[in-house]
Amino acid sequence: MTQAPVQTPRLFRATDPRTGAFVGPEFAVTTPEELDAAVAAAARAFPRFAAFPPEARARFLRRAAEELRADEEEVVAVAAAETALPEARLRSELARTTGQLEMFAALVEGREWLDARVDKGDPERKPAPKPDVRSLRRGLGPVAVFGASNFPLAFSVAGGDTASALAAGCPVVAKAHPSHPGTSAAAAAAVLRAAAATGMPEGVFAVVYDDGIEVGEALVRHPGVKAVGFTGSRGGGEALVRLAAARPEPIPVYAEMGSVNPVFVLPGATAARPKDVAEGLHASFTLGVGQFCTNPGVVFVPQDRGGDELTERLVKLTNGTPAGAMLNARVCQAYKRGLEELERAGARRLAGGATGEGPNDGVAALWEVALEDLAAARELLGEVFGPSTLLVRYGEPDELPAVAAALEGQLTATVHGEPFELEPGGIADALFQVLVDRAGRLIVNQFPTGVEVGPAMVHGGPYPATSDGRSTSVGTRAIERFTRYVAFQNFPEALLPPALREG
Amino acid sequence: MTQAPVQTPRLFRATDPRTGAFVGPEFAVTTPEELDAAVAAAARAFPRFAAFPPEARARFLRRAAEELRADEEEVVAVAAAETALPEARLRSELARTTGQLEMFAALVEGREWLDARVDKGDPERKPAPKPDVRSLRRGLGPVAVFGASNFPLAFSVAGGDTASALAAGCPVVAKAHPSHPGTSAAAAAAVLRAAAATGMPEGVFAVVYDDGIEVGEALVRHPGVKAVGFTGSRGGGEALVRLAAARPEPIPVYAEMGSVNPVFVLPGATAARPKDVAEGLHASFTLGVGQFCTNPGVVFVPQDRGGDELTERLVKLTNGTPAGAMLNARVCQAYKRGLEELERAGARRLAGGATGEGPNDGVAALWEVALEDLAAARELLGEVFGPSTLLVRYGEPDELPAVAAALEGQLTATVHGEPFELEPGGIADALFQVLVDRAGRLIVNQFPTGVEVGPAMVHGGPYPATSDGRSTSVGTRAIERFTRYVAFQNFPEALLPPALREG
Repeated sequence: MTQAPVQTPRLFRATDPRTGAFVGPEFAVTTPEELDAAVAAAARAFPRFAAFPPEARARFLRRAAEELRADEEEVVAVAAAETALPEARLRSELARTTGQLEMFAALVEGREWLDARVDKGDPERKPAPKPDVRSLRRGLGPVAVFGASNFPLAFSVAGGDTASALAAGCPVVAKAHPSHPGTSAAAAAAVLRAAAATGMPEGVFAVVYDDGIEVGEALVRHPGVKAVGFTGSRGGGEALVRLAAARPEPIPVYAEMGSVNPVFVLPGATAARPKDVAEGLHASFTLGVGQFCTNPGVVFVPQDRGGDELTERLVKLTNGTPAGAMLNARVCQAYKRGLEELERAGARRLAGGATGEGPNDGVAALWEVALEDLAAARELLGEVFGPSTLLVRYGEPDELPAVAAALEGQLTATVHGEPFELEPGGIADALFQVLVDRAGRLIVNQFPTGVEVGPAMVHGGPYPATSDGRSTSVGTRAIERFTRYVAFQNFPEALLPPALREG
Repeated sequence: MTQAPVQTPRLFRATDPRTGAFVGPEFAVTTPEELDAAVAAAARAFPRFAAFPPEARARFLRRAAEELRADEEEVVAVAAAETALPEARLRSELARTTGQLEMFAALVEGREWLDARVDKGDPERKPAPKPDVRSLRRGLGPVAVFGASNFPLAFSVAGGDTASALAAGCPVVAKAHPSHPGTSAAAAAAVLRAAAATGMPEGVFAVVYDDGIEVGEALVRHPGVKAVGFTGSRGGGEALVRLAAARPEPIPVYAEMGSVNPVFVLPGATAARPKDVAEGLHASFTLGVGQFCTNPGVVFVPQDRGGDELTERLVKLTNGTPAGAMLNARVCQAYKRGLEELERAGARRLAGGATGEGPNDGVAALWEVALEDLAAARELLGEVFGPSTLLVRYGEPDELPAVAAALEGQLTATVHGEPFELEPGGIADALFQVLVDRAGRLIVNQFPTGVEVGPAMVHGGPYPATSDGRSTSVGTRAIERFTRYVAFQNFPEALLPPALREG
């Protein structure tokens, strides 16, 4: 056998989005051999990891949270340099990340997520004896997790997908987002230290790097990978779905691809509290330079005095919004193109924030269009990822349910109204009867940004908000995505999984 | 506008597989306009149907069971003529079908399937107030159900997929299997009478007909359809998966595509009870002329005296097996091709049943191959749908886990062993540690045919046994496949779904 030629690894570096300058060390793009070794190790680790008692997996997750917290200063500093997100935001995102790890630790210890069922046999049953059948959830196998650009911690290497997959007993191979490799490396180091400290099998967790798409594609194609978690753009998510479907053994892809998160402001709300609604909206669509999947991108506002007041207030707030560095040059360029497309599609620019000095600054933008012009320009309902929102001015609330019925799948849909509008049989009721089949989360008189992490949260939604609208990527229910059911028929007690035994 | 030309509908008839003669009336292939009307009506029915209290849906399902029972004589007679299945089998399949409808009726009344969760808000929480978030399962929308040829009642128009979809609040458009249109029409009539009698919305259920694939394809492509249930061949299932994935809005397809259901007979079992195992295997692989998805198609048998005894007994039983009419000419032709392929791939024919007089008779067949010859002829592990099984003779049980690891996804995997082989750390344990990730149901000392319908059953399995190995098509858990989660944030009590209210 001849040895393969030694290749110089391709190197890349992160960029500080505020300056465009390189920051941090060079990272080597993971080679095909390294990727293969990582997935092979994950596949070898899977049976042992899945067989560990829940308490052992819980210890691992809790320790990962501790290790992350121990590195807080370093992680926050690196993430701030790589993403331009403010320190306070990164600290709270780190707390959310550790909270998620701990939430899943408690969940696996509780065992309810297993949905263990025992249906005892009856050899005397007529006409045929009844077999003893027991079943529970089991992890699918190694999971590929794609880090999101906009949540460098909570939806990245040690984020929600990783926490829920590990909790389910699935090893994880995480693909670092190319714009924050240093943050990814720091988070991965914390998880790997936790794995070693708690005696997890070699290969239970790995991180791979790329500044392009080859490594991610190879990961999704790899026969050892059994499911994919992704948060990002529609183009990226759909590409992974296609790759996964074309495998000899297709695998599930959970791609969260974003949405415009429509907000319907009813006339009662604009009459009673136009400024409050305007301020809430402004805070929501400009939060984090508008870089949230739940950013309210389309707001239906009545053509009345209250609607005008709301609009005036929004104009003022938007005009006074400072520019902010976006996550990376690609996000910033896409945002600028999105604004151009809104204009080309007929949206009228009502207000714009201050322009910045930085090469990747996102400038807030407020747009308006009349409802009757929307039907001819459906591209106005496409997601513009950044601090922009489009006001759609409508005449009568009765027009809204038909508008809602024409919407694509959304992560969220929100209605603002006064109590008289929120009665059964009222306009909000009519709207929600349509929206319930078009969004993963329905909201009354609050705003879609700020996703509560808990047992009841649904962060998902019909296509194209996600590629698999049956599930959620946030909250305890997320563990279900990386599991399947297995039944055990007529098993001797000693060979049953512990959760299915009599004891 | 000019009127579309009136086309003569394409007609087809069922064939009695025992004689090849036409049987029953002519059926018209559903036209594109009729199909569109059926799906449009289902889409209109969905919000109303989903909003009905669980008790109303339960009444509908129970009434459907009653109506089917009332028509038992007619249904059994028509099904016997169209499928050649024996009357006793059809009566028990009808009982299973009505039992499934009643099981799902009880399930929806119980409400636990909704997984309703209430996570109350806390306006005082720091740093941010906690919103009130509640969530539950909700039906996906209209479901297309493809009837299976081999279960004209229990997996067909009024079968398990229909029962679970209706229970979840999803209207159903059922595609009748072309080989039993009369049975389908009779079952559909019962469901439609039940829908009318219990006040269900127009369009909650419909049946469509075709003797080809156009109607089924159009159904899966129709934008009003939100999920697909299918039981049939791998080719058919994969075609539907591809169609569904290529839609502008992709939808889930639950295709149960069958498997070889490996049985591992350990040396202890062949030594202790070779004849019992042989008789059980023979009954299982020839049951219903071998036309079950759970038919044991590959049996690993030791090359020892017990293994020889088991084989001898199987040879004798197989040689004495009468031929039986298969479900239709296509199934029979495919079976014959499958046998030819086994022979071409190197299997040695050990025994064959009596040949029949009928044009579509399936003749039992027993084959043998040495384990060492299997690796070079993987096609021996392809499903042969019919009364055939392949004995794979192995030397040492230690060889089996590696063989199991190379298997594709299976509906079931079975081990026969004596207590000393079923100890933790023993050979069965080692096998199951591999098989648990390759099959939906693991079985000890029983046989895979005969799928118990209950709360713990898993009738599913990793690809290619099914197109979505996360779920089951049998048992109460099947309802989950036609649902998604929806969250309600900060909702006034009166607008919440009843299951999420305080009361």
